[in-house]
Amino acid sequence: MRTSNLPINQDRLWDDLMVLAEITEKDKPYTRRSFTPTFLQGRDWLKARFEAAGLDTRIDAGGNLIGRRAGAKRGAGAIVVGSHSDTVPSGGRFDGAAGVLAGLEVARALQEAGHDLDHDLEIIDCLAEEVSAFGISCVGSRAIAGILTEEMLAYEGPGGERLAQAIARMGGDPQRLSEAKRSDITAFLELHIEQGPVLEAEHIDVGIVETIAGITRLEVTITGRADHAGTTPFNLRRDALVAAARAILAIQAIAREMAETGEGYFVATTGEIHAEPNAANVVPGRVRLILDARAERHPTMQRFVSRIKGEIPAVVAASGAELSSIATLSDAAPAHGDSGLCAALIDAAEKLGLTHRRMTSGAGHDAAHFSRIAPVAMVFTPCRDGRSHCPEEWAEPGEIAAGAATILRAVLAIDRHEATP
Amino acid sequence: MRTSNLPINQDRLWDDLMVLAEITEKDKPYTRRSFTPTFLQGRDWLKARFEAAGLDTRIDAGGNLIGRRAGAKRGAGAIVVGSHSDTVPSGGRFDGAAGVLAGLEVARALQEAGHDLDHDLEIIDCLAEEVSAFGISCVGSRAIAGILTEEMLAYEGPGGERLAQAIARMGGDPQRLSEAKRSDITAFLELHIEQGPVLEAEHIDVGIVETIAGITRLEVTITGRADHAGTTPFNLRRDALVAAARAILAIQAIAREMAETGEGYFVATTGEIHAEPNAANVVPGRVRLILDARAERHPTMQRFVSRIKGEIPAVVAASGAELSSIATLSDAAPAHGDSGLCAALIDAAEKLGLTHRRMTSGAGHDAAHFSRIAPVAMVFTPCRDGRSHCPEEWAEPGEIAAGAATILRAVLAIDRHEATP
Repeated sequence: MRTSNLPINQDRLWDDLMVLAEITEKDKPYTRRSFTPTFLQGRDWLKARFEAAGLDTRIDAGGNLIGRRAGAKRGAGAIVVGSHSDTVPSGGRFDGAAGVLAGLEVARALQEAGHDLDHDLEIIDCLAEEVSAFGISCVGSRAIAGILTEEMLAYEGPGGERLAQAIARMGGDPQRLSEAKRSDITAFLELHIEQGPVLEAEHIDVGIVETIAGITRLEVTITGRADHAGTTPFNLRRDALVAAARAILAIQAIAREMAETGEGYFVATTGEIHAEPNAANVVPGRVRLILDARAERHPTMQRFVSRIKGEIPAVVAASGAELSSIATLSDAAPAHGDSGLCAALIDAAEKLGLTHRRMTSGAGHDAAHFSRIAPVAMVFTPCRDGRSHCPEEWAEPGEIAAGAATILRAVLAIDRHEATP
Repeated sequence: MRTSNLPINQDRLWDDLMVLAEITEKDKPYTRRSFTPTFLQGRDWLKARFEAAGLDTRIDAGGNLIGRRAGAKRGAGAIVVGSHSDTVPSGGRFDGAAGVLAGLEVARALQEAGHDLDHDLEIIDCLAEEVSAFGISCVGSRAIAGILTEEMLAYEGPGGERLAQAIARMGGDPQRLSEAKRSDITAFLELHIEQGPVLEAEHIDVGIVETIAGITRLEVTITGRADHAGTTPFNLRRDALVAAARAILAIQAIAREMAETGEGYFVATTGEIHAEPNAANVVPGRVRLILDARAERHPTMQRFVSRIKGEIPAVVAASGAELSSIATLSDAAPAHGDSGLCAALIDAAEKLGLTHRRMTSGAGHDAAHFSRIAPVAMVFTPCRDGRSHCPEEWAEPGEIAAGAATILRAVLAIDRHEATP
């Protein structure tokens, strides 16, 4: 795929990505965790790049870095392109950064073409999208959506620092957090690597994200009895790990069944297991499992949770152990892309000659929070082997550029009212 | 069961047990880990009790506390009664201590009866039977058996202390370790709580241990691929935890089959599980399991290991993961009780009117190491609910006294050559 016929400067966008990637903890590439000195270094570089592109740059009360190109029509509202520049530990070079730098490239392309929009154009680097040391994700986009609560601001991080203090340290103003909340956004567009294998496997250039899956996390606690592993005959054991093994397989079977019913995207994973006492010579007495489920449709999620609660206790009991509790750790409803904006992105991809498909994001994104206050849509670009959140995360220059070009075309169409959110 | 007709002073034995139990880390009963100040306090008390019973008391080069009552016939050899006074963290009041104090009570009973043995009688508190901070068990009985190696002496514990230094700190002399090795033991007898539920369930007073099971530990490593839990469809996953769950169930099924074949005692346990990255939002990429298997007969163990190595790889592969390795962490052969000594114990129990049965010990004991250099036999006494290695560990005064009386009778028979090891 060649993108040199696009107004996007592929090489410049790629160079920016590679330079930002090098701003990392040196011994742990590619790490730029929010609230750290390395993150602030990245922010300083980004701010300079925003300013070099002629953007009016500020940090809002929620600690988001915002670069603004004023529109010609006062009160027309803002078209926002954004994502995040923070990473997970040992993360990759594209997750988040690609969306922020694609937005910057869109702004530069318009600037160079001398094309003035009616709307304000804002590029936003949302603060702390990844789960940070304070235990929550999407700090900045929550602030913009007006759902960053006092309780969250009090969360403690390293050294007892409160989230509010950390936001202030990033240049935000948690005392005036309500000023971060927006009601003037006409459209929010986010480019992101897919973080999954679908686009690559199907040789598709861009994915148009219609839904960001809801995420529910459950904690399943199984209680058996810790006995001497050498002296307790099988018929007298209550082995919590054997019961947990059966539970893991039953959970997977239920999840696969839900995924195959055709009621939209669904996956579920037992990602964490904690056994006690976890000693070779003791029959496991207690096991905690953490389940992560993602559903395009909320009723599917409800049905999954209800089946887990209904079926797993008997599976565990059949092993002589007991299901002590199933606790809901978190429960976020699915977020939906705006149909008008999705249509604009598809139309843009068509006109650029790019292959495309509609899809659901299994991962959470800043766009999900923006969807509470504005029409949103996302563009996914392919990533190698579907890998992300690891140093091997990779995308090709042309793939990112194609996504950025799609967003640029859509921005123009929205501005011209050829697309209606 | 009444034992007041026995020469054993049940109350005195019980009082000793309760006093020693109170020598514990105060906030973590009942903890008297080897090499700690609390352990040394227990040793000081024991030494004083040994001396009060007229025993000639010393610490050998391996750090074992030995109380000796000289026999009438020079060169007749020693009849040894022993166990250990150290505990696991948050252990119980009987595991180990009951065997040492039963030995002491046997010595006192003989003393009070004015009964001089031909053989020397030694009561030994073996050093560090439980796995200590140095990572191995049965330090003292290994020394007596002559199998405490230079490599083991170099093992590092807290603060970088070497095991050799720690043994010296206990009053041992690791430079002259060969002097701890014994070749003069006519018989070694050990009383121990069963640490299992069989005697209690069958209402039997004493168990005569014919075999101490061999213990083999295996490490099974399963490799899948760590992928995003939200974005990776089921058909593209290589979930190491789902594969591990199948492996755990298959291992249990194989083990139960081996236990039911009737070729002697057999149990196996997956006691430890370590998943990576063990994060809710990541498909598990790698799981390590630690298996602990105990077999009365070595061929049974060999067959088990060979079935695990033969069958588990396919079980894991069926889940799309890969069995990277099955490593043998340790492999101790079964140890056998001396048939003459076992017969002496059975005869003693009969004459005392105690119910008894032959059994296999699934747990390891000092007696297993003594069996390399001397005829050995063990007496098991019941423990409530089969619990041990926990604060709830419990036995009744009469149960311990019955075991001690059985040993006393057997000691007399061995000394008189009515029993022949």
